[in-house]
Amino acid sequence: MKKNLLLTTLLSASVFTAAFAQEVVDQAVVQKIREEGLNHSQVMKTAFYLTDVSGPRLSGSPGLKHAQDWAVGQLKTWGMANVGLESWGKFGKGWEVEKNYAAITVPYYHAIIAIPKAWTPGTAGPIKGDVVLIKADTITDLDQYKGKLKGKIVITYTKTPLTRSTKPDLSRYTDEELDKMAAAQPAAPGGGRGGANSPAFAAMRKLRALRTAMSEFFVQEQVGLVLSQARGTDGTVFTTNGASYAEDAKPVAPELETSGEDYLRIVRLLDGGIAVQMEADVQTKFFDKDLNGYDVVAEIPGTDKKLKDQLVIIGGHFDSWHGGTGATDNAAGSAVMMEAMRILKTIGFKPKRTIRMLLWSSEEQGLFGSRGYVLNHFGDPKTMQLKPEQAKVSAYYNLDNGTGKIRGVYLQGNQEIGPIFKTWLEPFKDLGASTVTISNTGGTDHQSFDAVGIPGFQFIQEPMDYNTRTHHSNQDVYDRLVEDDLKQAATIVASFVYNTAQRADMMPRKELPKPPPTPAN
Amino acid sequence: MKKNLLLTTLLSASVFTAAFAQEVVDQAVVQKIREEGLNHSQVMKTAFYLTDVSGPRLSGSPGLKHAQDWAVGQLKTWGMANVGLESWGKFGKGWEVEKNYAAITVPYYHAIIAIPKAWTPGTAGPIKGDVVLIKADTITDLDQYKGKLKGKIVITYTKTPLTRSTKPDLSRYTDEELDKMAAAQPAAPGGGRGGANSPAFAAMRKLRALRTAMSEFFVQEQVGLVLSQARGTDGTVFTTNGASYAEDAKPVAPELETSGEDYLRIVRLLDGGIAVQMEADVQTKFFDKDLNGYDVVAEIPGTDKKLKDQLVIIGGHFDSWHGGTGATDNAAGSAVMMEAMRILKTIGFKPKRTIRMLLWSSEEQGLFGSRGYVLNHFGDPKTMQLKPEQAKVSAYYNLDNGTGKIRGVYLQGNQEIGPIFKTWLEPFKDLGASTVTISNTGGTDHQSFDAVGIPGFQFIQEPMDYNTRTHHSNQDVYDRLVEDDLKQAATIVASFVYNTAQRADMMPRKELPKPPPTPAN
Repeated sequence: MKKNLLLTTLLSASVFTAAFAQEVVDQAVVQKIREEGLNHSQVMKTAFYLTDVSGPRLSGSPGLKHAQDWAVGQLKTWGMANVGLESWGKFGKGWEVEKNYAAITVPYYHAIIAIPKAWTPGTAGPIKGDVVLIKADTITDLDQYKGKLKGKIVITYTKTPLTRSTKPDLSRYTDEELDKMAAAQPAAPGGGRGGANSPAFAAMRKLRALRTAMSEFFVQEQVGLVLSQARGTDGTVFTTNGASYAEDAKPVAPELETSGEDYLRIVRLLDGGIAVQMEADVQTKFFDKDLNGYDVVAEIPGTDKKLKDQLVIIGGHFDSWHGGTGATDNAAGSAVMMEAMRILKTIGFKPKRTIRMLLWSSEEQGLFGSRGYVLNHFGDPKTMQLKPEQAKVSAYYNLDNGTGKIRGVYLQGNQEIGPIFKTWLEPFKDLGASTVTISNTGGTDHQSFDAVGIPGFQFIQEPMDYNTRTHHSNQDVYDRLVEDDLKQAATIVASFVYNTAQRADMMPRKELPKPPPTPAN
Repeated sequence: MKKNLLLTTLLSASVFTAAFAQEVVDQAVVQKIREEGLNHSQVMKTAFYLTDVSGPRLSGSPGLKHAQDWAVGQLKTWGMANVGLESWGKFGKGWEVEKNYAAITVPYYHAIIAIPKAWTPGTAGPIKGDVVLIKADTITDLDQYKGKLKGKIVITYTKTPLTRSTKPDLSRYTDEELDKMAAAQPAAPGGGRGGANSPAFAAMRKLRALRTAMSEFFVQEQVGLVLSQARGTDGTVFTTNGASYAEDAKPVAPELETSGEDYLRIVRLLDGGIAVQMEADVQTKFFDKDLNGYDVVAEIPGTDKKLKDQLVIIGGHFDSWHGGTGATDNAAGSAVMMEAMRILKTIGFKPKRTIRMLLWSSEEQGLFGSRGYVLNHFGDPKTMQLKPEQAKVSAYYNLDNGTGKIRGVYLQGNQEIGPIFKTWLEPFKDLGASTVTISNTGGTDHQSFDAVGIPGFQFIQEPMDYNTRTHHSNQDVYDRLVEDDLKQAATIVASFVYNTAQRADMMPRKELPKPPPTPAN
């Protein structure tokens, strides 16, 4: 890291300008890519099959399998090589919803908007009964409910009202925001997230302990159904990461992640002394025949004698949450990567280096698909023991920030690559992509590569309605995809792949990360 | 109308300034009203009972009856006189939902967000079956489906995608917008809505004819369930005005007004050649024991020997649609009017003129509660035959534009009242209410009074999220109510009532409307 810091203090942001670049972009090929990508796109058709047709693609679920099988078939049809599913390791159980019905019946009828929490059981048939308001700030507060909750529907007190933002749900980056990103300084090393001894952290730990205790208590007391409040308003339900999918996961109670308005209505009624009854019929199914996780693989093999063993890898995660159909998260990125491959194949590209595309599974549970793949092929970030192939991957490009078009790239602190990317983005200035920022971005699969010293990058994408409406929600559906943005992204990705595959040298690398210290116990 | 036009051409907007006013506002009483209204409000408690506790208040439904009975009880408890329900005339059948469940089962399971269309029958038990895509631009296009739809679930083709606004859902008037309203000129008389012979009108009429034909066709063909696309996004469903509630309404098919995302997903699948199956269990109930409609009435009787037979009337409609709990439309206005009465009673106000509050029903079906009341008490706008009491109503004040606070008043072309209202608003400038506009506003109950020559007014209210999220939607629930806004509104209404009750003269009137010409057939 030291070398980069020095470089930064000596140079200004203008280091990223094309003037320093020795990159030459083949404009004729860029034009071919643009023509195919912008005028003959199949990205929305692909997205349709991954979302509407497959349904949710939760890790281990039949929906994911359906989508993976479809993708494998489609990639073969397009002429990719070495197409298939590769196991990245053991995941755990699959799960899907078979029935989801719940309604208030007393004081009047009202069907609620709610989604079964991932990896929770159903109600074992239709249930009907009183809803009980749980008020517990500490674990001992639960004692008053002992023996009173069997078969009941439980809801936990809250008084936090819903609020409405005065900002629009949808946004795109302004020039000012992009300039600010471009001018950002590298992150100081060792900066943490707030000490593990801070009051906020202690409060959070206490809350988590309470929630765990309540969860176990509800199982012991044989509660019929738990209602938890989902984030979101207006019918939008953001689901959580769910219960455990481990083979030996301990039992949990059936649980519905409930829309804010419905949840608070029930709380207000009960808190106001008005009796509430509900009926519900929730059926879920677990799958444990095959506990492995799989990534979709496809290649356009390299043709240069010396370079074909080197790799350009692109990817995005293929799995999703289950409230919607994982359209912006991440059928968008998956469809774009597939489309980038299709574009390159269609224009008859015969790359020097091998191009490989991976569509990860179980990113949502912790980047497992990419981490497993990297562990199997390139090295172990815990020890930094590297495999020979690590030295052969020129770069990894990722897309997983929604449907928004590409505005640029996060350099992950790799200063040297800046001018290269700047040059590669030049032909797409008219499409709004020109920002290169030294900053890191987190939370997705490029980090798995970055962790073992392989240049790995996530593109800067327009925010759109990702955080406000779609990310992990029941509104993450096909309607949220913006065709022009996805076409632009596929075009730019294809161009980056082309450039990486054809340039004389491998992409420059940062200093190799050191293995993390063994955590104190 | 001529006199007002002349007045307007001679005077500028400054005619509304306090300088012309001869009104004197009793500041001590205003302070009492503010103290009670802003610091001891019960408006949210009232709103809680009208929404969460009562459920939807659809015309003729048990929910409306429940809320009316509660309101009558509460008004009596507060000490109002002559409290009760007064029939305004014959309405028709009541209706409510008893069960609302529907889900896609093929190609995978997905519970949809949808609401039974008002006054439609249920599915007569659980149904399961194919969904059929109907493509029909003309009535003869329906022939291809003859004999093929029995027991099926039908959905009509559309290719219009959902769009997302770049504006926030929530807004308040800017000073610029209010200034523009204040400076507005009176509407020219005789301006219409576009000729009945315009192409747009013809297209609309053709579409309506097609829809009617389809509706009848579905009944003939014994369709199991109709899906129609509701306006709205993100889980928000705006319901329509429903089917007929008339005693002799002709049969219609069961119908679910379906969230846009779910509707379009099914259309895309079917249009893409992917089979879709659904299951549904919709149960609704009609009520025809008492076909009459009722308004809630309450009074604070006048005390002045000469003036107590004169009336100050306030009101708002009490009925709602059934997707949510009619919180902003119009538990907000109803709660504010009830609260205004409570404020005046609590400060010990003994008015000169009688104050009467009406909470209308069946406004949503065509201002029926207020029209019927006006017909019974004051006159017939069709003939302009007036009853003696018409001469005794000083003014009618209405609230029915959501939860937003009062910014001012629409004068409905009554120029003379401008300075009076401006003076009455002065003590509330700090609360954001100061705008007086000559303009009309429509669509609610003040028009019933205006039509028979009684000064009737709706206040200017902040837009909030009324048009974007709540008006006639499943998101019109308690969480959308903003306490500070409702407190402000009740305080201002109480003050207007006080002023109207106590001033020496009746409020000035516009020229009496002429009876409308008999429409040509």
